[in-house]
Amino acid sequence: MQKYLVRIKYKGSAYSGYQRQQNAHTVGEEVFRCLKSVFGEVDSLSGCSRTDKGVHALDYAVSFNSERVLPEASVVRAMNANFPGDISAFYCAYVPESFHARYDVISKEYVYKIYNGGTPDPFWKDFSFFYPSALDLGKMNQAAAHLLGTHDFTSFMAAGSKVTDCVRTIYSACFDRDGEVVTFRISGNGFLYKMVRLIVGTLLYVSEGKILPEEIPSILESRVQTNGFAAPPQGLYLNGVTYERE
Amino acid sequence: MQKYLVRIKYKGSAYSGYQRQQNAHTVGEEVFRCLKSVFGEVDSLSGCSRTDKGVHALDYAVSFNSERVLPEASVVRAMNANFPGDISAFYCAYVPESFHARYDVISKEYVYKIYNGGTPDPFWKDFSFFYPSALDLGKMNQAAAHLLGTHDFTSFMAAGSKVTDCVRTIYSACFDRDGEVVTFRISGNGFLYKMVRLIVGTLLYVSEGKILPEEIPSILESRVQTNGFAAPPQGLYLNGVTYERE
Repeated sequence: MQKYLVRIKYKGSAYSGYQRQQNAHTVGEEVFRCLKSVFGEVDSLSGCSRTDKGVHALDYAVSFNSERVLPEASVVRAMNANFPGDISAFYCAYVPESFHARYDVISKEYVYKIYNGGTPDPFWKDFSFFYPSALDLGKMNQAAAHLLGTHDFTSFMAAGSKVTDCVRTIYSACFDRDGEVVTFRISGNGFLYKMVRLIVGTLLYVSEGKILPEEIPSILESRVQTNGFAAPPQGLYLNGVTYERE
Repeated sequence: MQKYLVRIKYKGSAYSGYQRQQNAHTVGEEVFRCLKSVFGEVDSLSGCSRTDKGVHALDYAVSFNSERVLPEASVVRAMNANFPGDISAFYCAYVPESFHARYDVISKEYVYKIYNGGTPDPFWKDFSFFYPSALDLGKMNQAAAHLLGTHDFTSFMAAGSKVTDCVRTIYSACFDRDGEVVTFRISGNGFLYKMVRLIVGTLLYVSEGKILPEEIPSILESRVQTNGFAAPPQGLYLNGVTYERE
């Protein structure tokens, strides 16, 4: 029996997220189908994260067991021969039997892309949130700085989630502009349901003057699950997960 | 009566090119439909270029006449409110009645994008040609240099075209790499049917050693329409047209 770690990227537009579920087209289902073609049978398949419907991944990790031992480069090649065009594998490694793609994650990074041009760009449509008004990146970064460190993030968890331990640590959170594309980069030890999109939505309200940067601490302290504005999924990318052994 | 020049960009994946035609979904048809919504009636609608099925445009010009005189910025806004997500307008100007988006073009630039990573990238799939083997950009650029200047380009015109004057002038033709993306940029006073894609296909053969760079002049001199390898359409973008009055 060999345990594998495989890293993939996917364009999430056509999928109901990663997590396999009845009556929905998911990335996890495509991964499972692909692994069955390559390995015959696999078990203990796990993905590093649930991602929401329409969210992308630039670096997503899956782990699984197989009786077959294939060279790492062959696994990547064979998986790409079996994946649809919106998913691809780019890395494979043998890992110890105890490894688990989800439970062993020590940090995650997300990016959120805003297309901030004056007119919509067809090439960015599926890959960003089109927001044509001026953005005050200074104020947004001032507000984002209040998220750094360890906090209870209940206020940035979408209504409906049943998670009870909402304490997470954020290592970095910052906006940057490259021409018309504004990228928000956030890393932490874990994220709650829709947390990144709710954070981006709130920081857009900061840019619009609806919320002051210095109000972020009191929003955190209120600890009420929110029905607030979550920035839309097509701008969000899981940008990588880190494991201790790497 | 006011003559307008409007610049648009479009993702060509879902279209049978620009040129309006029976029983095909074309960019030109969407432009006509959009202009009818914004202006009521328009006439003398012309596009700067035929583009092939699946080819994109980063800067495509159309001209048309209307009885209605709308401010330039309103035209852009109104067109974007009526365009599907894969087409957008970004510029509008009043032009003299004699202006013609197609006949007045003095030069065109195309770019061709090759995704030259080791594994396919879902985010580049619709926007590039996936070519995982090593590319010899030095040899390709040596070969491309033989295309510069005024030549009869019959040898780089796809079989089926009935154009008889095949003399064109190429101003620049060069490959450049940015990470895994290799971009070919070519400008000239005009291009024949599938000419850019046939040139890219030939230059890939040069990289592969099937053709020597110094064979390009004799290929040009042969003046035989080709059934050779045309690089696929999803890598090609019309990147701009120039008019004398600008």
